[in-house]
Amino acid sequence: MSPSPLSVDLLIEARWVVPVEPHGVVLDDHAVIVNGGEIVAIVPADEARSLYAPRERVTLAEHALIPGLVNAHTHNPMTLLRGLADDLPLMTWLQEHIWPAEGRVMGPDFIRDGVELAVAEMIRGGTTCANENYFFPDVIAATYRRMGFRAVVGLPVIDFPTPWAKTADEYFQRAVEVHDALRDEPLLSTAFAPHAPYTVSDENFERLRVLAEQLDIPIHLHTHETAQEVDEAVAKDGMRPFERLKKLGLVNERLIAVHMTQLTDGEIAACAAAGVSVVHCPESNLKLASGFCPAEKLRRAGVNLCIGTDGCASNNDLDMFGEMRTAALLAKAVAGDAAAFDAASALRAATLNGARAIGLGERVGSIEPGKRADLAAVRLDALETQPLYHVASQLVYATGRHQVSDVWIDGERKLADTRLVGVDIDAIRDKARGWRQRIAAEDPA
Amino acid sequence: MSPSPLSVDLLIEARWVVPVEPHGVVLDDHAVIVNGGEIVAIVPADEARSLYAPRERVTLAEHALIPGLVNAHTHNPMTLLRGLADDLPLMTWLQEHIWPAEGRVMGPDFIRDGVELAVAEMIRGGTTCANENYFFPDVIAATYRRMGFRAVVGLPVIDFPTPWAKTADEYFQRAVEVHDALRDEPLLSTAFAPHAPYTVSDENFERLRVLAEQLDIPIHLHTHETAQEVDEAVAKDGMRPFERLKKLGLVNERLIAVHMTQLTDGEIAACAAAGVSVVHCPESNLKLASGFCPAEKLRRAGVNLCIGTDGCASNNDLDMFGEMRTAALLAKAVAGDAAAFDAASALRAATLNGARAIGLGERVGSIEPGKRADLAAVRLDALETQPLYHVASQLVYATGRHQVSDVWIDGERKLADTRLVGVDIDAIRDKARGWRQRIAAEDPA
Repeated sequence: MSPSPLSVDLLIEARWVVPVEPHGVVLDDHAVIVNGGEIVAIVPADEARSLYAPRERVTLAEHALIPGLVNAHTHNPMTLLRGLADDLPLMTWLQEHIWPAEGRVMGPDFIRDGVELAVAEMIRGGTTCANENYFFPDVIAATYRRMGFRAVVGLPVIDFPTPWAKTADEYFQRAVEVHDALRDEPLLSTAFAPHAPYTVSDENFERLRVLAEQLDIPIHLHTHETAQEVDEAVAKDGMRPFERLKKLGLVNERLIAVHMTQLTDGEIAACAAAGVSVVHCPESNLKLASGFCPAEKLRRAGVNLCIGTDGCASNNDLDMFGEMRTAALLAKAVAGDAAAFDAASALRAATLNGARAIGLGERVGSIEPGKRADLAAVRLDALETQPLYHVASQLVYATGRHQVSDVWIDGERKLADTRLVGVDIDAIRDKARGWRQRIAAEDPA
Repeated sequence: MSPSPLSVDLLIEARWVVPVEPHGVVLDDHAVIVNGGEIVAIVPADEARSLYAPRERVTLAEHALIPGLVNAHTHNPMTLLRGLADDLPLMTWLQEHIWPAEGRVMGPDFIRDGVELAVAEMIRGGTTCANENYFFPDVIAATYRRMGFRAVVGLPVIDFPTPWAKTADEYFQRAVEVHDALRDEPLLSTAFAPHAPYTVSDENFERLRVLAEQLDIPIHLHTHETAQEVDEAVAKDGMRPFERLKKLGLVNERLIAVHMTQLTDGEIAACAAAGVSVVHCPESNLKLASGFCPAEKLRRAGVNLCIGTDGCASNNDLDMFGEMRTAALLAKAVAGDAAAFDAASALRAATLNGARAIGLGERVGSIEPGKRADLAAVRLDALETQPLYHVASQLVYATGRHQVSDVWIDGERKLADTRLVGVDIDAIRDKARGWRQRIAAEDPA
């Protein structure tokens, strides 16, 4: 007599399961078993039927089930500034549009409504985790918690007063407060988010290095974004920002270095040796003409390379499918090699590598037993993904994010057959329109 | 007493109309009036209500109405090879996968089924016209005609035997036959499509130059796609391909030069002076690591710059929204200028400039009275395009092609609220799957 089937919360049967770990594998007709929000098994679908008695069964006959995408660098409140001021020189964009707009609206309401809009967009596009970097991390965290979205919340440090904090002491005090308040949150954790080498003093870097070690959290930093940044640092400090970070003891496995378009081979090797994670934001780098990140060189050197959208003011979306595709395409041209940065590597960069960078490599980023169930299902029977020769290729080079049908975060269904669960789209849209009225009225464009 | 309203076929009321010509204009709450397949007026929606008595009225309250997109370079039968062999070095890709696959399947059935799939994909994505370049232009033309899709059909010339023709005489004879057969087709016209300078002799270029003048049709040619192509030409002919084309009398307003990643400033100026059209295929150039087309330099020099997807084997889609976005983003990074290739210019490149290149500038490519009604409506109320500050920005930087709701070609409705009209999606999908079985079975991957 066969043993009686095991009672579990959820059984998801999919035409294809792409676990990401092991690398490059596509499982045909497999089931992912979830219990208590945790992935407990991945087994052939026909075996699963006799082994498990799930309370809920979801059948995805034309779908690939992938780990939820991890957006490794974003400023989600800025979603409300999407397309406010495009096609402008960088400094005009920042000084005449983005900063004045932020100055007028920045505060808890703007932050909350921007993150709400962003979460809805992310879930619809298969993203289940964001590495967030903006002011008012307390409000950001509260919004993510309310919406049941996984995030690492950046604790801002910058040498200037902002509506969030006025002095270095205040930045650090509020950072520790937010960190402490989130200690027991299942979906939330923190990282230090010093803005950039050119806006944070050695003294503040020293201080946050020590605190980051004490709290055991990552350090999420924009750097080497443009040649101008590097040149100005050399002129001012007599060294490149990366060299300064090394001297400050920041080049290690805590560092999440964002953009990195300007890198010597020595710096790439140093990143690999030190275990630095690099977040590639290809569309932002293109749109702001920041430069070309040597993504394939980084990957080949063994650097933990991740993908981020950056904020919606410089992208203009939170589309990780689009970002994976741009990353994979652009890397080939930059490397001069059509075989560079293949589809499976792009998918890995957008999932497991991102999770590892932000300290969640043991919890999410792949479909493996013992990990939390952050999952996205993608319909591949659309004409736009037919015929289908290779699943990973199709996901990276042909799939649009609107083909995402279902999403789970921590085992909770967030998207069911393309419908957001528990999210009022009309209310979010109305709020976005309200902010538009207010922001556009005062924008000089 | 006011005059009685004019009876017309169709009145489309849209929240925004983006006519493309005049450049950069967005009309709020306007109506486009169509009669006999022709655009007869663009007027404010409230005026339109009293002026016209349409047989059909379509109200697009949350939409932008734009000219149908013109894909200025594609090989649509190859849609059936989408994703067959990605992430490979160029020569491995071509010699071990694409050419053998084509060799096994090329013929009328493959051509017909590939074009059907492509037409369905193009219409769903707001594309209404394609500049086609593949073998069996008779079958291609018949398929476009049957599906009511506007296209310029390339008449292939290559110095090698193929299933389409064996000798130069046969290529030219069949070209003239196809051209003659399409003379009275309202949606179809032809261009010569010599493959590339390195596969067509001086003698054949001479012959097609004379014929193209007699028939008054464009010449659609891949060239300066890679540095290797240019270097090999210099080694073989003692001159760059562009120089050879000049000597052959081909550098003029008939020339549709595709790819053009390798260009000197002198060549750019020569293109502008001669009225050459350049088709930029950014995603194909990235994916095959071909190089970076100096799109902004070309645009500033006054060259008629268009956008094409290239075939699905090197893209892997026919998404002109994605291609516009990639073109606009990439041009900024290549030019080192965040203000380069703005959204309105990208939209123009993907519509009117494409139409002009292929000899249809008087018929389509913009929403103007007297032009044929090739139109696409795009829903902008999706969360992904909220808030909305600038319509052109949103269309280029944030819109996904799935937001296209309605499409007309020559005044005929081809897409109605996202549903294809008169197209059997299931049959097309089944055929694509059939080809996949056959092609994958013999592919070495």
